[in-house]
Amino acid sequence: MTMTRTNATFPPPVMEARRWLEGVNHPADRPLMNVSQAAPVDPPPRALREHIAEIALTRDDAHLYGPVLGLPALRAELAEQTTAHYGGEVAPAQVCITSGCNQAFAATIATLCGEGDEVILPTPWYFNHKMWLDMSGVATIALETGPDLLPDPDRAAALITDRTRAIALVTPNNPAGAEYPSELGQAFFDLARSHGIALITDETYRDFDSRSGPPHALFQDPDWHDTLIHLYSFSKAYRLTGHRVGAMIASQERLAEAEKFLDTVAICPSQLGQHAALWGMQNLKQWLAGERDEILSRRAAISANMPKLKALGWQLRGLGGYFAYMQHPFSQSSADLGPQLVRDAGILCLPGTMFHPEGNAQGARELRIAFANLDASGISQLFDRLAALPAA
Amino acid sequence: MTMTRTNATFPPPVMEARRWLEGVNHPADRPLMNVSQAAPVDPPPRALREHIAEIALTRDDAHLYGPVLGLPALRAELAEQTTAHYGGEVAPAQVCITSGCNQAFAATIATLCGEGDEVILPTPWYFNHKMWLDMSGVATIALETGPDLLPDPDRAAALITDRTRAIALVTPNNPAGAEYPSELGQAFFDLARSHGIALITDETYRDFDSRSGPPHALFQDPDWHDTLIHLYSFSKAYRLTGHRVGAMIASQERLAEAEKFLDTVAICPSQLGQHAALWGMQNLKQWLAGERDEILSRRAAISANMPKLKALGWQLRGLGGYFAYMQHPFSQSSADLGPQLVRDAGILCLPGTMFHPEGNAQGARELRIAFANLDASGISQLFDRLAALPAA
Repeated sequence: MTMTRTNATFPPPVMEARRWLEGVNHPADRPLMNVSQAAPVDPPPRALREHIAEIALTRDDAHLYGPVLGLPALRAELAEQTTAHYGGEVAPAQVCITSGCNQAFAATIATLCGEGDEVILPTPWYFNHKMWLDMSGVATIALETGPDLLPDPDRAAALITDRTRAIALVTPNNPAGAEYPSELGQAFFDLARSHGIALITDETYRDFDSRSGPPHALFQDPDWHDTLIHLYSFSKAYRLTGHRVGAMIASQERLAEAEKFLDTVAICPSQLGQHAALWGMQNLKQWLAGERDEILSRRAAISANMPKLKALGWQLRGLGGYFAYMQHPFSQSSADLGPQLVRDAGILCLPGTMFHPEGNAQGARELRIAFANLDASGISQLFDRLAALPAA
Repeated sequence: MTMTRTNATFPPPVMEARRWLEGVNHPADRPLMNVSQAAPVDPPPRALREHIAEIALTRDDAHLYGPVLGLPALRAELAEQTTAHYGGEVAPAQVCITSGCNQAFAATIATLCGEGDEVILPTPWYFNHKMWLDMSGVATIALETGPDLLPDPDRAAALITDRTRAIALVTPNNPAGAEYPSELGQAFFDLARSHGIALITDETYRDFDSRSGPPHALFQDPDWHDTLIHLYSFSKAYRLTGHRVGAMIASQERLAEAEKFLDTVAICPSQLGQHAALWGMQNLKQWLAGERDEILSRRAAISANMPKLKALGWQLRGLGGYFAYMQHPFSQSSADLGPQLVRDAGILCLPGTMFHPEGNAQGARELRIAFANLDASGISQLFDRLAALPAA
């Protein structure tokens, strides 16, 4: 029997974790706290929903096939806003729209790699990246990070072989929360360019970066597109997860290659979703700034509550974007702790084992808390529940 | 330099054909007739659009992530209607929803094949199937059809090797229009089962089959799911091409494998699109029957107009679904005839070369006419334009 593409990888972790909920009853005074998925639980603002409804009623073409690479107006808007935010020059023809940011990563890899090639991912990694590489016949080369969860360019350099096609960074990082310093991004860009490989930056959480101004200067290099492939998602900023709209920014030549993949796997992104993203970009800047403020205040609540747990042996390893990345003090593996937290504390979160190569000892000590859906009081409660767990 | 996944295939034919339009002016009395893409050009009926608008305004969860395998209500509805239409027994757990039928094919192949495996496709083939196989590292084994454009199971049997994982049929066929007889489907099913490989049936155009009743009896086999993988699209029936909603019906075990692929490449199908498809299935049966009648009357118009062209050496090779598959009488290849028809006759259609292995002589003599968007008078006009072309 052959090894199929899907045999080569593991089941979706978010779905697996959801199964831990089966058969567990949560007492009325301790309802489930779901901090497993990095996604808004509230719908988009009313005005955006009204815009979607109006488009559905009035724009015939919003129900029909559109261009494979996305609506021209949305490509132009993202080009303009990317140029404004990062500096440098991004043309509309260097932007394509995808059915979510996962699909942007998949398309990117399809343009870079063939069977047996290699891509370097810092650990802990985003599991859907690992899954796509597995299913593409591409070897994932794990780049272990230090105590600050930042990848080291020198260590990465030592992992590059003649089969390496790219290094993929996620910043702000999923799952680790780390915001990569601008100089670190630059060092990876220089490394990638010097080896003739690509640097992929997945910046899904960029709208919630705690730093003001551009998080890196890579687009300011006039030839950024010979090395950089930037991925973005409209899902988090405008609460459009159910509409599937993301983007890939790269050279026009690479997008012509990506078009083959996107035409075959999707034909075009959801048209209503694209209209929604466009309206959001054009009308919700102020609202989004408020959203960012709220996420930053929740992030501050994590820090403020941390002493409760620190005294019990917990450590906050990383904090940023939607994520607190924690080290727990218990002797059992986080893989067992995950389902146990559902039963004993009414908390659903993902264990570090889901973000590391199988058997890695570090992941067994870690938990990812996707805190974005908890307000300050919810965060305080979450920490109280964790603090109340029986000692290690 | 490595061969990447996208390097391994050709650019999307529909996009390529669209480029033939660039710089061509169509006289006012002879506007462009676009018969290149098999897609409705009219939006969904008003009531369905109103339903989409209402869902956007009232259902919070329609904007947020849903289950990877689709909305339970839509899975259940399609299971029920498939059971009713085909006989036999299809359970909701054997149905998953995908972001369009192309994605259903991609997911299917990911669950069946690894690098170097083989899949048999009758020619002329649907180019997106060929493209996905190319990008998956799967060899496409061409099964040539005879004058009736039907594949021969004995010929297929001779092509099966120990790397063969599936035979994929499209019925009603794109591009050939052929409606595969029930017994032919059965013969392929028996062949596939006897070799322990899968039979994929892409039935995107099933709602426009000219036969009443089930087009095949495969679901009536209680163990259909050990061999059959059925693909469907909601796009044509309910004019939802821009919403990207398709389906895959297979064993529950296979869907668990497909879930890995779909989670990574899409996360979930568009939620609004799924609500639209569900409402369409539940409320537009009578309307869809009228749509089918109209397509069948257009099909009859093709037959009625054919004598005009037959006298000039044209042949109608296949007719069904959305397609008339024609053999032209000219000496040049259809690949050159395609752009020439845009300039000289204001007709955009796809040449047979796009549906055959490179260099195949048969494709050079063929044209695909996607007639669904032309009414009877438009079809008469189309044939007049073709008849007016200078003799071969």
